[in-house]
Amino acid sequence: MVKYVYSFKEGNKDMRELLGGKGANLAEMTNLGLPVPNGFIITTEACNKYYENNQEISKDVIDQVFIKLSELEKETGKKLGDPINPLLLSVRSGARVSMPGMMDTILNLGLNDEVAEGYAKHHNDYRFIYDSYRRFIQMYADVVKGYPSSRFEDIINELKKEKGINDDQELSAQDMVTLTNRFKEAYVEMAKEEFPQDPKEQLIGAITAVFRSWNNERAIIYRKMHDIPHDWGTAVNVQEMVYGNRGDDCGTGVAFTRNPVTGENKLFGEYLINAQGEDVVAGIRTPKPIETLKEIMPDIYNEFQSYCKILENHYKDMQDLEFTIENGKLYILQTRNGKRTAKAAIKIAVDMVKEGLITKEDAILKVEPNQLDQLLHPNFDEESLNKASVIATGLAASPGAATGKIYFTAEDVSKAKERGETAILVREDTSPEDIKGMKDAVGILTIRGGITSHAAVVARGMGRCCITGCETLSIDLNNKTLTTKDGKVFKEGDYLSLDGTTGNVYGEMVKTKEPEISGDFEEFMSWVDSIRTLGVKANADTVRDTKQALKFGAEGIGLCRTEHMFFEKNRIFYVRKMILANNDEERKDALNTLLTIQREDFESIFKVMNDKPITIRYLDPPLHEFLPKTEKEVQELAKSLQISRAEVINRIENLKEINPMMGHRGCRLAITYPEIIIMQTKAIIEAVINVAWLGFTVVPELMIPLVSDVHELKYLKEIIIDTANNVMKEHGVKVKYKIGTMIETPRASLLADEISPEVDFFSFGTNDLTQMTYGFSRDDAGKFLTDYYEKGIFEKDPFERLDCDGVGKLVEMAVIRGKSANKSLELGICGEHGGEPSSIEFFHKVGLDYVSCSPYRIPIARLAAAQVKLKEI
Amino acid sequence: MVKYVYSFKEGNKDMRELLGGKGANLAEMTNLGLPVPNGFIITTEACNKYYENNQEISKDVIDQVFIKLSELEKETGKKLGDPINPLLLSVRSGARVSMPGMMDTILNLGLNDEVAEGYAKHHNDYRFIYDSYRRFIQMYADVVKGYPSSRFEDIINELKKEKGINDDQELSAQDMVTLTNRFKEAYVEMAKEEFPQDPKEQLIGAITAVFRSWNNERAIIYRKMHDIPHDWGTAVNVQEMVYGNRGDDCGTGVAFTRNPVTGENKLFGEYLINAQGEDVVAGIRTPKPIETLKEIMPDIYNEFQSYCKILENHYKDMQDLEFTIENGKLYILQTRNGKRTAKAAIKIAVDMVKEGLITKEDAILKVEPNQLDQLLHPNFDEESLNKASVIATGLAASPGAATGKIYFTAEDVSKAKERGETAILVREDTSPEDIKGMKDAVGILTIRGGITSHAAVVARGMGRCCITGCETLSIDLNNKTLTTKDGKVFKEGDYLSLDGTTGNVYGEMVKTKEPEISGDFEEFMSWVDSIRTLGVKANADTVRDTKQALKFGAEGIGLCRTEHMFFEKNRIFYVRKMILANNDEERKDALNTLLTIQREDFESIFKVMNDKPITIRYLDPPLHEFLPKTEKEVQELAKSLQISRAEVINRIENLKEINPMMGHRGCRLAITYPEIIIMQTKAIIEAVINVAWLGFTVVPELMIPLVSDVHELKYLKEIIIDTANNVMKEHGVKVKYKIGTMIETPRASLLADEISPEVDFFSFGTNDLTQMTYGFSRDDAGKFLTDYYEKGIFEKDPFERLDCDGVGKLVEMAVIRGKSANKSLELGICGEHGGEPSSIEFFHKVGLDYVSCSPYRIPIARLAAAQVKLKEI
Repeated sequence: MVKYVYSFKEGNKDMRELLGGKGANLAEMTNLGLPVPNGFIITTEACNKYYENNQEISKDVIDQVFIKLSELEKETGKKLGDPINPLLLSVRSGARVSMPGMMDTILNLGLNDEVAEGYAKHHNDYRFIYDSYRRFIQMYADVVKGYPSSRFEDIINELKKEKGINDDQELSAQDMVTLTNRFKEAYVEMAKEEFPQDPKEQLIGAITAVFRSWNNERAIIYRKMHDIPHDWGTAVNVQEMVYGNRGDDCGTGVAFTRNPVTGENKLFGEYLINAQGEDVVAGIRTPKPIETLKEIMPDIYNEFQSYCKILENHYKDMQDLEFTIENGKLYILQTRNGKRTAKAAIKIAVDMVKEGLITKEDAILKVEPNQLDQLLHPNFDEESLNKASVIATGLAASPGAATGKIYFTAEDVSKAKERGETAILVREDTSPEDIKGMKDAVGILTIRGGITSHAAVVARGMGRCCITGCETLSIDLNNKTLTTKDGKVFKEGDYLSLDGTTGNVYGEMVKTKEPEISGDFEEFMSWVDSIRTLGVKANADTVRDTKQALKFGAEGIGLCRTEHMFFEKNRIFYVRKMILANNDEERKDALNTLLTIQREDFESIFKVMNDKPITIRYLDPPLHEFLPKTEKEVQELAKSLQISRAEVINRIENLKEINPMMGHRGCRLAITYPEIIIMQTKAIIEAVINVAWLGFTVVPELMIPLVSDVHELKYLKEIIIDTANNVMKEHGVKVKYKIGTMIETPRASLLADEISPEVDFFSFGTNDLTQMTYGFSRDDAGKFLTDYYEKGIFEKDPFERLDCDGVGKLVEMAVIRGKSANKSLELGICGEHGGEPSSIEFFHKVGLDYVSCSPYRIPIARLAAAQVKLKEI
Repeated sequence: MVKYVYSFKEGNKDMRELLGGKGANLAEMTNLGLPVPNGFIITTEACNKYYENNQEISKDVIDQVFIKLSELEKETGKKLGDPINPLLLSVRSGARVSMPGMMDTILNLGLNDEVAEGYAKHHNDYRFIYDSYRRFIQMYADVVKGYPSSRFEDIINELKKEKGINDDQELSAQDMVTLTNRFKEAYVEMAKEEFPQDPKEQLIGAITAVFRSWNNERAIIYRKMHDIPHDWGTAVNVQEMVYGNRGDDCGTGVAFTRNPVTGENKLFGEYLINAQGEDVVAGIRTPKPIETLKEIMPDIYNEFQSYCKILENHYKDMQDLEFTIENGKLYILQTRNGKRTAKAAIKIAVDMVKEGLITKEDAILKVEPNQLDQLLHPNFDEESLNKASVIATGLAASPGAATGKIYFTAEDVSKAKERGETAILVREDTSPEDIKGMKDAVGILTIRGGITSHAAVVARGMGRCCITGCETLSIDLNNKTLTTKDGKVFKEGDYLSLDGTTGNVYGEMVKTKEPEISGDFEEFMSWVDSIRTLGVKANADTVRDTKQALKFGAEGIGLCRTEHMFFEKNRIFYVRKMILANNDEERKDALNTLLTIQREDFESIFKVMNDKPITIRYLDPPLHEFLPKTEKEVQELAKSLQISRAEVINRIENLKEINPMMGHRGCRLAITYPEIIIMQTKAIIEAVINVAWLGFTVVPELMIPLVSDVHELKYLKEIIIDTANNVMKEHGVKVKYKIGTMIETPRASLLADEISPEVDFFSFGTNDLTQMTYGFSRDDAGKFLTDYYEKGIFEKDPFERLDCDGVGKLVEMAVIRGKSANKSLELGICGEHGGEPSSIEFFHKVGLDYVSCSPYRIPIARLAAAQVKLKEI
């Protein structure tokens, strides 16, 4: 018989696949002797079984739950449904990895009319127990039945109006009884049946609801964002309730063992006296800093600090804890590795190495490569910042700088993003429904909530800049305006700038500048580089990008796209002239001008590169991409070529293609117009010769794109060699260079052993390879991929993350075949996957020599490369 | 040392790779004891060496030529350059397979001033020897030096004018001497040097010219058309001249051992008395039928007939011979397997089996599958034909029926074809320069030339309808008109119709009808079917096509494209309504109408199929293909949907795609709009149920297109099964059906083992697979593939003939992986390659169960399938 339910004592931290992260840690803490309320865990397997079984919870799971329930009753000395000494339960989700706020929770389970009344009488505490009961009814109605919470909120507001009070705190014991009764009436109205009085029925209902919440929309979106497989399922934690809201010797809070924003080694957190745990996270009351607890409850504070130490030493990582104080007794409700900013991640990792807690290798594995992105993107330019006016200051919840137009709903932000705007989401507070808007925003600003509020936690996870608790601002949702305490009004679409590192909000656009990189970062990256074996190069076409790339640690340029040099204002005209030339002479004229321009471009880049390797790709896009798009440009060109406007338009029409992605581009262009590849080869070789006089030794790697047949390559290779020889002869010098090809059509992969003997290197173009392997165009796939995600057909975008099963098979095939026919073949990848960690892992494993990615992804790639190397050992 | 030169005695017919077809056969005939003028052969290897060696003939080849020359001089008792008894030579090309008229030939080599004068004096025959000399000068200037022949023609015409004569025959001996002198002067003028007097220099020049002619443009085009590899090279045959133009006891002719048009077992050919061989082929003088030779030279005729018998028995095939009679002695100059019409090919094959000459298996291998095409295409509808007026009658040179607009140059025909017209090429006579135009024409009409003229031979090879020798018509090239003997004038672009089976030319468009299939054909195809193991099905979407397919022997429908049912006039409107519906109700309405229509379509086809298997593909093309293209249609739709014209245009714009080939189509459509696949499944299953009442048992094979991931398939399969179950439940019956998928993306091939367990069958869509594997769009590739052919990068169009190396590898992979995970998987192919013989060979070898092709290709596919099976044994 499969075991579907584990008591806390039966588990440990290594069982997270089965018990979920929360459950495994509760078990671990129990066995460490920490004060954890007792309970049991229903496994992720039971969840998967629930889905296999047409969303029905199976009898053997129920049976095992009731056995564990009996044990729990025995241990606690309480009994579910007992009116004098009732066992009250929390029922919480817990997946393998934390998905904060994504799934459902039910508290105070076990209450019914009899228990509430019995307990109230026996303990003489009507207010507490009926407060709990009414909360339970509302949660149960919402989570298990899906009835709107607002219905219950309305009842509370009504009662408060009747009584003329503002604050929930002011509600009396009698009010709580009244609320409970009115809630039950509302429940009957919606459910057409009484609120369930059988605590066991309540329990199974709640467990089922948690299973079901695994597949609610926001959970699905969250998993997609974080690459969490849909088939992992969630575990369910059933645990004895403890209460932080039974008086002033009670309280609840959350804390990190170190600062999750800066990484500072100091307890960081907040708490509320006389409150339920959800109150802290929800951000409805603004909590107090954890330090102040030291004064109010010094013993509790010291006890808590000692647990923090124990847990950090045990888990060897910064912990994120939830605790509750019930009538002067401390309970730890949860621990997990804490989410942190990239800056904090680096500092914590480096500090822990220095503290002797972990090794350098451990440190490297502790930082999520994608997170580094936060560190590398621009901050505000200080000069501009000084001139800008601060309209408010909130909590610095997630660092970074964001400037954008403000919108007041997640939906409006998403729409603005679709229009191509950069948008900032402004909300009272955020809830899991806002996830998509938060993702689409460049920054998030909330009026309420602390640094552990939903907005703050989610934003840090996403690397979005976020300011919370900015209480001096007020929102008018009807008129879509934001007003400062001075009465200044910002309308929807107005610009704000957020500084997530200081919490300052600026009432205008503020210029940004390059980030400064800390000493911890440098040290950490030096460990990274000493481990990794995979090379990391950059895709860069300009001097600016090249400098940026070198600063971020690129070992060379893996892709220099020559067409980008063509698009600049003064040049595009000659490109157009070349394309539409009336005769050979005109074409030669245009080509000569372009030759001069390209040669100079290459010289500038070569000087910056300082002898590092550079791979230059020949012209790739279809010619029509260069042609005039506006009437003005058409007329200009017509005039210059001395042909009619109609003729220009006619020639443009002739160059149009039905499927340009698979059209006349890449090496196909060079075959039709050898003069282009001749010009480009000349420009490169001449530039090499020119910088040689300045003491630079460049060995350019010339790359032919979009090859699908070895004969294309042979034909062009001959032209390149002839041209290079001519240039060298003319200048009376010898120059070294390499010739290689992109592998970006399936055919090139399949026939790599025919191609490799002809070249010095392969560079995989996984963007095009993905398009052709799936047979879908990146430009058009957006339309249907949304349906694919919604219907669970695709888990992730294959353009973002390499499809290792399909596209990866072609890469691997090309590596094996290519190497078999040319032992000294160099192998790289220059598609966008070159900067994506899971893809980098794959590239390392199949034996590529390097990845090439955009400059800002370089540190990410370096770290990912080191991590895969470490995992290998 | 490599042997580059073989005497005829040293060779045999099996050495055609080395000696070329002509050389190998000359050697074979020599060894059979037939009267063949003596000579030797320079091998194809020498030709390849010439090209490897930068187009220079190497010294060892020259040395070996001179050694063989000495032997030849010894055997003939003549000597090259001897003024009394000179050896005169022909130098001819000879590739592995015949390429008639494509490469160069030089005759009368060995003549110079001294030889001509010496011979003339000694034999007292000035006219003959100077006629030969002037011909040699002209040929040498043309072939070796590339000077225009027209320059020499002008000199002849000038002299004829001076003398007041019309016919070359009337030129006197003195005239020939004059011509020779004037030719030499013209030569000096063009070459800036004297005509070469050293016969050995002439010989090496001529050999080099033949090598060079292997790569002339028309030869390259011919090879491309006939799939002859460019690296085969040509051999060169050097042979003692014999002369058919030394008097009335001389002559020359060509003959087929059987009729190459009808296949009748009767000598078929023509000859000219007192003429050179080239005169017959060139079509300048109209020759006499071979039968008449029996009366003029009965002994020669009988001797020739006996050689025909010997050769046919020896080669076990119909032979095409060239002969010359020199002063009453018969020489055989060439034999080769004769080209023939499809009808003749079938009849000859069947007859030879009945004669006991060959086996049925031999017969099957003797017919070129592609040729059957000729038999299957429409002939003229007799009723229309009877009403049409015959404006002229020529020789029925190549059968078939053609109606089209007339053009007078090959170039104009090609341009007309590009414009989408069907064009007929009308010429005085054709020459190898016209090849491309002949290919682009639907029919060819020449004023001069016999049934073995260039036009006739090439047209038969291509399967083009052709009428030659239509001497009552006259062409005015300047005004681009064709005039009948009655003075009726046809301008460029006017319609003519050609009946290649009767030789009749009609001065208008004539309707066509289905071909009738002969008893020989039926018998032959029954042998074919008894041999082949590969199934042959048809791509057919209509009752008409289905009937046609069954008539041609299809064993089922391998591809029924449901979208074609949508395009018909009354239906497209509902399709548009479905696509642009304002709401679900409108969409449902449209879908219901389409359901009725599709169900009826399927019922009609099922009835015709008579229980044969049928594979139905779900909607495949992107929806925008169905949308209105004209203003009228847009307005109609706007009115019906009660939306504005602008809104319709807006929705059309929204559906546009950048790369529609890789866009929202195939299974991607069904995933976004499951209602379409539900409707189609309903229509199919209901149709099956409806025809079941009529006694038909249909097991439809439902095919999902463009799958690239198993999850797409699983998702749709579930919908199909649910829908089918619902229909069956509703009707209270059970229906069998299969579910399969097209394999047409590289990813589906790579992951075939994930996909195959989910399906009953795979059907390869090699059109799309080719596009994606190469990464080029068929719609756009035309623009650059021309350059690819010209530059020798591609030999052939991969859309016409499967690329076995690349695309084929994916097919093979999918077969192996697919079968490994599903032993009972059925495998077919329904791309256009399914009707192309070399591709069929590949499909058989990798183990497919069937090919599916267009109805007209069915017999071709059957024959190709039988041939590959026979080759296997």
